[in-house]
Amino acid sequence: MSSTPQSPKKILIVHAHPEPESLNGSLKDLAVSTLEEAGHEVRVSDLYAMKWKAAVDADDYGPDASSPLQVARDSGRAFDAGTLGADVRAEQEKLLWADTVIFQFPLWWYSMPAILKGWVDRVFTFHFAYGVGEHSDTKYGERFGEGTLAGKRALLSVTTGGPESHYSARGINGPIDDLLFPIQHGILYYPGIEVLPPFVLYGTDRMTAEEYPAVAAAWQERLRTLDETAPIPFRRQNFGDYEIPSLHLKPGLERTGRSGFALHVDA
Amino acid sequence: MSSTPQSPKKILIVHAHPEPESLNGSLKDLAVSTLEEAGHEVRVSDLYAMKWKAAVDADDYGPDASSPLQVARDSGRAFDAGTLGADVRAEQEKLLWADTVIFQFPLWWYSMPAILKGWVDRVFTFHFAYGVGEHSDTKYGERFGEGTLAGKRALLSVTTGGPESHYSARGINGPIDDLLFPIQHGILYYPGIEVLPPFVLYGTDRMTAEEYPAVAAAWQERLRTLDETAPIPFRRQNFGDYEIPSLHLKPGLERTGRSGFALHVDA
Repeated sequence: MSSTPQSPKKILIVHAHPEPESLNGSLKDLAVSTLEEAGHEVRVSDLYAMKWKAAVDADDYGPDASSPLQVARDSGRAFDAGTLGADVRAEQEKLLWADTVIFQFPLWWYSMPAILKGWVDRVFTFHFAYGVGEHSDTKYGERFGEGTLAGKRALLSVTTGGPESHYSARGINGPIDDLLFPIQHGILYYPGIEVLPPFVLYGTDRMTAEEYPAVAAAWQERLRTLDETAPIPFRRQNFGDYEIPSLHLKPGLERTGRSGFALHVDA
Repeated sequence: MSSTPQSPKKILIVHAHPEPESLNGSLKDLAVSTLEEAGHEVRVSDLYAMKWKAAVDADDYGPDASSPLQVARDSGRAFDAGTLGADVRAEQEKLLWADTVIFQFPLWWYSMPAILKGWVDRVFTFHFAYGVGEHSDTKYGERFGEGTLAGKRALLSVTTGGPESHYSARGINGPIDDLLFPIQHGILYYPGIEVLPPFVLYGTDRMTAEEYPAVAAAWQERLRTLDETAPIPFRRQNFGDYEIPSLHLKPGLERTGRSGFALHVDA
């Protein structure tokens, strides 16, 4: 337990659940009140309340959409020209404003709800979140530790229907760290965001109202200690750990017994 | 190369790309013509052309939506009552009709495009794709090898912008088999579908028109040999490999050096 005063931060909460009175809705509301009481400035992107458009299409790029559509190139041109749709530009501005981004969502089919994936697909455009920096035979962009959003931090707050054992090292679903890797490393660390260890609530299908106070207290503790929490030490792409141009982890750098996603965590 | 005659099959293609003239659009069209020429019956769910609604909400469950909304319970009630929306019922019917399901999509941010995730979120309802079979202290449902869609097969056809080396065992993105595990095991094998090894085209950002004929030939070869292709041998949940109720893989069953997702493949 900690009560170290934190410096006031700018915190964006991206929330993806259709029911305000759900557990996810309650955790989002609790985050807002807890963070504001601690003196932070909080903004919320409540994707269902905003009726967020989930599917990338030519409408996103206005006059910069080509025919046939080329998603990467056209999104980069529209980003450069400032002609992305207003909804996407507003989210990019919130990301640039924020010090910390919290994502609140239920794990549906082992990943984010579609509406949140659509927030990523549409907001993380070429030249904003990828296609940043030199791409040549000797460098493959500024990403994984560098990028537009470097210096910011993120935290996933996730609920699962199934129990924790199913998500453990030998559990049938696969380890939760591996299930979240494509989000934490592939989406968030890619444009430079440092990612704090996730806050995961398991077994919510069978959670009772009596269990909520303990859950709320644990969530508040995480929120009050954001400053002191160390991020997951993902390896940076351009600082010597990877071969160029293969971007293979160099031989011998792995921790004992590591393979797969875990190779890319240096701890 | 094989020319073994295949028995006529019912094949559903679920396609998720906004541009008909894209590589993904071409691969989908080629699959339709190749499979029809081989005598198979083919149906296509072209999600962008259908303007597929991506976000789960109360509208999906009609009169069976409760307030506050409970996604699992309400979707199961609407499924049981036959009151799911017509678009969702049509997709469930196509899945029940099909012998084989092919998914054609670009890997966006290391996962499916939002519109395809929304197809899963909305079509794979409680009592149809999950919450099937006994759930007790001694059994956790019929899933991972059993379920509503047991006996069917699926195949992912995926394009990636980045090169193959980035998706290899030591590649910075993580191994492609691990990136696809939440889809192949978590979404498809869960309701019982056997999953064939994926058809992955890498480096499509820099692919030239001159490379397409070889790509097309490789895709046609996969399509013409669906029958002879062995599925990924994911471990079945209820046939002795897992402890009950933890659903941990039993000690000693793993292949040498395996951990994480790979524990759940028995080959």
